[in-house]
Amino acid sequence: MSNVAREPHGANLIAGERVVGTGASWHAIAAAGGAKLPGSFRDADDDQIDRALRLADESFDSFRATPVAVLEKFLEQIALEIEALGDALLQRAHEETGLPLARLTMERGRTMAQARMFAQVVREGSWVDAVIDTALPDRKPQPRPDIRRKLVPLGPVVVFGASNFPLAISVASCDTLGAFAVGCPVVVKAHPSHAGTCEMIAEAILSAGRACGLPAGFFSLVHGKEHGVGLALVRHPLTRAVAFTGSEKAGRALFDAAAARLEPIPVYAEMGSTNPIFVLPGALAERAENIAEGFVQSMSLGVGQFCTQPGLLIGVRSPEFSKTAASITEKAAKIPAATMLNAGICAGFHEGVAKVRAIPGVQVLTPETSEKSSATPVVVKVGARTFAANEALRHEVFGPFSIIIECDDLAEMLALARNLNGQLTATIHATAAELQEHATLVRILERKAGRIVFNGFPTGVEVCAAMHHGGPYPASTHSFFNSIGSSSLLRFVRPVAYQSFPDAALPLELQASNPRGIVRRVDGRVDK
Amino acid sequence: MSNVAREPHGANLIAGERVVGTGASWHAIAAAGGAKLPGSFRDADDDQIDRALRLADESFDSFRATPVAVLEKFLEQIALEIEALGDALLQRAHEETGLPLARLTMERGRTMAQARMFAQVVREGSWVDAVIDTALPDRKPQPRPDIRRKLVPLGPVVVFGASNFPLAISVASCDTLGAFAVGCPVVVKAHPSHAGTCEMIAEAILSAGRACGLPAGFFSLVHGKEHGVGLALVRHPLTRAVAFTGSEKAGRALFDAAAARLEPIPVYAEMGSTNPIFVLPGALAERAENIAEGFVQSMSLGVGQFCTQPGLLIGVRSPEFSKTAASITEKAAKIPAATMLNAGICAGFHEGVAKVRAIPGVQVLTPETSEKSSATPVVVKVGARTFAANEALRHEVFGPFSIIIECDDLAEMLALARNLNGQLTATIHATAAELQEHATLVRILERKAGRIVFNGFPTGVEVCAAMHHGGPYPASTHSFFNSIGSSSLLRFVRPVAYQSFPDAALPLELQASNPRGIVRRVDGRVDK
Repeated sequence: MSNVAREPHGANLIAGERVVGTGASWHAIAAAGGAKLPGSFRDADDDQIDRALRLADESFDSFRATPVAVLEKFLEQIALEIEALGDALLQRAHEETGLPLARLTMERGRTMAQARMFAQVVREGSWVDAVIDTALPDRKPQPRPDIRRKLVPLGPVVVFGASNFPLAISVASCDTLGAFAVGCPVVVKAHPSHAGTCEMIAEAILSAGRACGLPAGFFSLVHGKEHGVGLALVRHPLTRAVAFTGSEKAGRALFDAAAARLEPIPVYAEMGSTNPIFVLPGALAERAENIAEGFVQSMSLGVGQFCTQPGLLIGVRSPEFSKTAASITEKAAKIPAATMLNAGICAGFHEGVAKVRAIPGVQVLTPETSEKSSATPVVVKVGARTFAANEALRHEVFGPFSIIIECDDLAEMLALARNLNGQLTATIHATAAELQEHATLVRILERKAGRIVFNGFPTGVEVCAAMHHGGPYPASTHSFFNSIGSSSLLRFVRPVAYQSFPDAALPLELQASNPRGIVRRVDGRVDK
Repeated sequence: MSNVAREPHGANLIAGERVVGTGASWHAIAAAGGAKLPGSFRDADDDQIDRALRLADESFDSFRATPVAVLEKFLEQIALEIEALGDALLQRAHEETGLPLARLTMERGRTMAQARMFAQVVREGSWVDAVIDTALPDRKPQPRPDIRRKLVPLGPVVVFGASNFPLAISVASCDTLGAFAVGCPVVVKAHPSHAGTCEMIAEAILSAGRACGLPAGFFSLVHGKEHGVGLALVRHPLTRAVAFTGSEKAGRALFDAAAARLEPIPVYAEMGSTNPIFVLPGALAERAENIAEGFVQSMSLGVGQFCTQPGLLIGVRSPEFSKTAASITEKAAKIPAATMLNAGICAGFHEGVAKVRAIPGVQVLTPETSEKSSATPVVVKVGARTFAANEALRHEVFGPFSIIIECDDLAEMLALARNLNGQLTATIHATAAELQEHATLVRILERKAGRIVFNGFPTGVEVCAAMHHGGPYPASTHSFFNSIGSSSLLRFVRPVAYQSFPDAALPLELQASNPRGIVRRVDGRVDK
């Protein structure tokens, strides 16, 4: 354990071994100021990628047979190893991403909590979703055989971490940890924008794996600044599934590559959304100031770099709504400029804002700034018809940017809701009476979003069993699946039915005596 | 109710209305003899397809709000309406498919049982998979909000029926019925090889819908002999998911079209497999004759036209294995020629067999026949190395065709298993002691198949909760999902999380008092 930052070795970590890439050398860049940070990295080549996947595949049978107690210990050990990285981890992540140390400290806590949540999932064991239909030997016209189904792991999983959560949605994300929990080996593509942080977390995972005697190959980390590395990982014949969090453009490119394979595999891409907030008149009458305050906090939190950042605020024209817009503007204008995750994201933000500014009918509320190396909140206002007529306004501008949309009436608000793209979240601010009266809005949003928030704000995704972090395209590439919380593991499993097996040859979870004591559905009844 | 066959009207059924297609007129063809059957059909055009999907979408909010008691009644009514079609249905299906009346009578029973199974699923209600994490207002550093998740229907679903089950896996399949059970409107593309049967079942569904006052648009049937109709259905922007059972070529074409959409949608294609059977020496020593008998019955059942038809029998060279092969040959040769589902399938069978015959090292065991308008069982034998060296042998030949593969030893058998494609089923014949000793084979097959059968045969797919009818590609396009049994409905839903909702505004299944009395997971514990 050391709190002294050391220079990253910069090598790929292939089945526990340091293997220096053969691509051109590159450096991680300080988010603030753009200086080269210590340590140089090289992209993995095709042979190295092949080696990572082959060793992952070779480790699979051994890894998935890991005893429950060991796997549980391993996941808990990951939390301890991450903690043991101490301030050096937070410092490196801060330098690479520009995120404040206080935020990173909280994010580290969330990352450790994720590992412990999956340890609990492994211990409890019911995730296998055991369903048992016992034999009916006397049934006419034919007897029913004994059929027992459970979920089994898919095999090697490739994970692409997000730029905006260098700890909780990167190397030790619910993607990686969920795959481990079900027994899938994982190959992570390190995010080039925080490659040093990735290396540290990867070493923590490897250390936990060694402590628990896991087979080499259960985990690899490969570097790739060029898109070719990611595509090669997705196209590798041994890859069984892919988890990705990032931009729509990159996610779609990986999805397309996977769909074009001889044997297609799922790419579960979480690609963000504009997270609309609908404000009904009664809520404004009751607490306009409170809504304005919460909205500005949520839209600017982490320099607006959240998948669930609310990019749209939708209300009906009224003096109260105008006052709320003015209050939002005033509060947003007070927020100081802040460093974004990297220069590319910062440039993308300013380009996105410039494009929106240029659309006729868009009224920019916040003061313009010429400073392009950081970001301040930008709030604009449009009428509902202008919004409907401009496809560009429907796409996410990643960063602290929001559009206030003024509708003529509630009917126009509902029409706007019906025309939204798929969303991770949608939020309604209303009185309880309004929510009942305008149940239609809820019904519409059930078709659009993965999570519907009442009188709150969408940022702050709770890591729990009931969470759904996903949604209709382009929020995600498959709306059944979730990337945060325990149900994220469903992306890495598939059912197998065992027909007429002798009890002793069945997996433990399906044996008659239920030796693992899990929740099962037996002949139509829940049984524990 | 009438047992007198009437001539099909041949029109598309769009939201309950007969709409004659604008394509060229075509007839259903008698499977036996090739005569034109009464009734002429025309393909739907793009406007008609658009109308079916638009009306499906317009009906969605009303259809998914159908009270549970009405939806349950509707599904039960479908069973009654199908029964009320009487012998006329069986007669038409017999003429169109060549399947014997006794088989069709059983298949009708299965179809009715499917409708009743989904009625029961609707009544019971736990399919929504309710997960509740209650608020922790005092949690530090932040309070946890109340989050409640359930599954909601996707919207309009397009279903393509299979040629080989004109009743149970066609218009009233687990695809259609599962979609109805969760509240999704359905547009079925009628199978051109049994278009008259499709029309009759569609009328039965519409009649049940009228009896229950369901909204127009909840169901449409469109005809399409040309591939363009299917592609237009998949590409329509309002289509939310597609279920298909059929050939790998057709399934992949639909999958590719869906993946290439601006907004990709899932195509759940079940495309069949070669369903290997592994025979271990101990089982042969105990009951070789029994295995030979069961194998021939299973491979020739329904003229071999089952998705789970066992196309491979794999054993280790021995006098007993040779004797078993001889016994299989003898029994197979006694099976009379039979009519296949249609001329195209019959031609495909004979072409597939001819291709295999031409491969050096393939020994044809059954007598050759020059009759190409029907099919008799064909059994060939190859060594494991010949099998491994010829990609063509790994693909399904649809019909009563099986390959007996002789391995030098168990190691070669395991190597062969490792190199199999994805499968719907894999079967092991072994003594209980052998199954324990060769657990490696089970581990390998868990990576290959959706269902593993012990000492049985894969044909005869039980329609129940524990069934999994699916598997790794090319058995299906998404190995998580199933097309037969109650879990087939998972293809037509996605989760929505409700955050901080007032109790009264929540869906019934998530309200505090659990008014539907369903099984729920509340704060990590199963609760009913």
